[in-house]
Amino acid sequence: MRPAALALHTDFYQLTMAASYFEHGLDQQATFSLFAHATPPERGYMVAAGLEDCLEYLENFRFSAEEIDYLRSLGRFSRGFVDYLAGMRFGGEVWAAPEGTVFFAEEPILELSASLIEAQLVETFLVNTVNHNSTIAAKAARCQQAAAGRACVDFSLRRTMGLDAGFAAARSSAIAGFGGTSNVAAAMALGLKPVGTMAHSFIQAVGDEKNAFDLFAQTFPDHTVLLVDTYDTARGLARAVETARTLAAQGHAMIGVRLDSGDLAAMSRLARQTLDAAGLERALVMVSGNLDEYRIADLLAAGAPIDMFGVGTRMGASADQPYTDFTFKLVAYQGRPTLKLSEGKMTWAGAKQIYRSHDAAGIISGDELCLRHEARPAKALLQPMMQGGRRLAPPVGWAAAQQVLQAELASLPAQCRLIRAPQPLAPTVSPLLRQVQDDARQAALAK
Amino acid sequence: MRPAALALHTDFYQLTMAASYFEHGLDQQATFSLFAHATPPERGYMVAAGLEDCLEYLENFRFSAEEIDYLRSLGRFSRGFVDYLAGMRFGGEVWAAPEGTVFFAEEPILELSASLIEAQLVETFLVNTVNHNSTIAAKAARCQQAAAGRACVDFSLRRTMGLDAGFAAARSSAIAGFGGTSNVAAAMALGLKPVGTMAHSFIQAVGDEKNAFDLFAQTFPDHTVLLVDTYDTARGLARAVETARTLAAQGHAMIGVRLDSGDLAAMSRLARQTLDAAGLERALVMVSGNLDEYRIADLLAAGAPIDMFGVGTRMGASADQPYTDFTFKLVAYQGRPTLKLSEGKMTWAGAKQIYRSHDAAGIISGDELCLRHEARPAKALLQPMMQGGRRLAPPVGWAAAQQVLQAELASLPAQCRLIRAPQPLAPTVSPLLRQVQDDARQAALAK
Repeated sequence: MRPAALALHTDFYQLTMAASYFEHGLDQQATFSLFAHATPPERGYMVAAGLEDCLEYLENFRFSAEEIDYLRSLGRFSRGFVDYLAGMRFGGEVWAAPEGTVFFAEEPILELSASLIEAQLVETFLVNTVNHNSTIAAKAARCQQAAAGRACVDFSLRRTMGLDAGFAAARSSAIAGFGGTSNVAAAMALGLKPVGTMAHSFIQAVGDEKNAFDLFAQTFPDHTVLLVDTYDTARGLARAVETARTLAAQGHAMIGVRLDSGDLAAMSRLARQTLDAAGLERALVMVSGNLDEYRIADLLAAGAPIDMFGVGTRMGASADQPYTDFTFKLVAYQGRPTLKLSEGKMTWAGAKQIYRSHDAAGIISGDELCLRHEARPAKALLQPMMQGGRRLAPPVGWAAAQQVLQAELASLPAQCRLIRAPQPLAPTVSPLLRQVQDDARQAALAK
Repeated sequence: MRPAALALHTDFYQLTMAASYFEHGLDQQATFSLFAHATPPERGYMVAAGLEDCLEYLENFRFSAEEIDYLRSLGRFSRGFVDYLAGMRFGGEVWAAPEGTVFFAEEPILELSASLIEAQLVETFLVNTVNHNSTIAAKAARCQQAAAGRACVDFSLRRTMGLDAGFAAARSSAIAGFGGTSNVAAAMALGLKPVGTMAHSFIQAVGDEKNAFDLFAQTFPDHTVLLVDTYDTARGLARAVETARTLAAQGHAMIGVRLDSGDLAAMSRLARQTLDAAGLERALVMVSGNLDEYRIADLLAAGAPIDMFGVGTRMGASADQPYTDFTFKLVAYQGRPTLKLSEGKMTWAGAKQIYRSHDAAGIISGDELCLRHEARPAKALLQPMMQGGRRLAPPVGWAAAQQVLQAELASLPAQCRLIRAPQPLAPTVSPLLRQVQDDARQAALAK
């Protein structure tokens, strides 16, 4: 979709810092950790997503000729520095958790080691990409969890924060287990199932509801889902039954009906009864309209006989928590662990690893935040993904991430899986990391 | 940024409806209204933004050859329909409110008339674009309002929902009056002022705070803003004063200091006192970190001596209201007004106009929702923007929209301008529109 040159999608201070590093020869090896200080409220876990876009970006990192001209035109940077930028590529190393991995506060899901200037310039894109993909992935995972085995599909494109976010919603919800997306561009690019049949405008344009149903069924006799709430739902259902009978007489089966307004619990019961009474037991009841994990859970708790949820805006915007407080912090420079002491924003120094232990039943018993070189008889979440600016393995798609996430969710303690008032885990910290941290802290305090 | 072919960024049901319209020859002139059913909670007004992107999209609407191949490969559509899509361009008409216009619930800010298929296929992009730009514009306008004349700059790129959203945040906040953006790509594309100097990592990498300040000042003697809270703010301030003195001795002036953590009210007072005591009365105190209109208002109410606000995530994500319930509804087909009756989602039928009246002091006294052809001695908000698929005027930029918004905000009643518990206006409805609505409603009920 996008041209290869994305390097200018960065914060201006990355360039001013880089310029000063360049002028003073401060461009040694640096390590940065990407993590969230806190699991957002109402989340029992976070879900790693966006890594594939990050790796692709790093492999293709460069400034275009026009961007270089622009930077020169600002009159702020030396000729030597801008010339350096013109030839710059990313040659660093990345350790990261595979997409679909579940994680918690303070746990870095990506650590990047590179020359200080390279690491600094890529920060903004990496944080942006991991943030928006992971934030939506956690929201979508909760929706799919609430649906308890029933199908969810992505209807979010019209109210996401732009087309990027719509694309991320389609991909992240696929990772979460959604069965399709209304987003045709994303379906094409990602090999997802495109879903959707009709809006209210179809019935309004035809004018007569029964006629509208029949016309649609003629065009798509094997893919008919009728929207029954444009005028009066009970009458709409009765007409859908008539259309289904016409289809059946021609050897086709209506797939189902959709409800998009009103009391979805009551209306879904009416729909199920009407369909069953007409012998259409296999026709599906689909609902949509401001759905999220809370409403899905409430509908199912009320016994609403719903087969499929069209989940839109509130998932694609992650409406109750539209961002995660991801941050990208310098944790080592020239082999020396570093940290900042800013109030309420402490970072863990040094290159790290997260070790995850499981009990006999396969449930997570705890995570331990360690230094990278420490060993533990547990699962290491961070894996080497890139070296010398090149991927260490071919790209993996959303389907692989979906498998990772499915296994991760199955291993979560019950407290993390609650839809309301979940309790995330918190990692313990290895004695060695704590020691390194204390030393770095003393050194910083002495400054 | 994006290739010209954006037509596939649509919901799949637009294509299935279009296919059925095509097969049945249902492709007469249709009019759709784009509006929000409700002003979001905690908003006293909405701000129209995104129109320029919509017009550009409509002028360039087409499917690429690869997209056509993809649609064919689905096996769902007839050859005739896909051939039709391959040659399709947008040839319709658009009336819209200029970017920067303030509006309220039920007021259409864009009305589009075109063949039914064309209108249907462009819906998703238009709603997405108007939603994300307008949602951020209202949030940014409230931040700038809360800052009460002090400068705000956009620091949101790292945690927006993708690069699109970051771009929209830079542009929408410029419309709202922000003085610059950290987003370098947006600054280049839009002619905005790129802003930013250093992050904590700069001080950590250099190791010694005083040394870090001096090195940065050497590189940018006329553009130095020092971040003083990496280790200990009081000490950081004292060191910034030393660096400022060195700069002054060389004939340069430090621009200011930035605080990014802790109690910003207390720290900004300490910063102001420290700078003033050192004779640096003209050095600015800048703050950042989880700011939004509420925190800005609270800081200023507490008398915090802040000169500039770096506003990031909570503005760029419009964190408390990350979407607006925009919708795109068929209001006329073949010259006949239409509506839907779905519970809680009624639409006003027919092509419309919004007339805005002002009192003697220039304050809005009321909006009236009328049929398009009605005349009123008041300001008409909707203007013809496109005819036959071509713009009626060259593109206007964010600066023009900024002027529109400034005048609009000055004309808002006080109740709309409140930061907390604002009260939006509601339009009245013309007797003629009410009559047409009642007739259409009776006709729909009869169905």
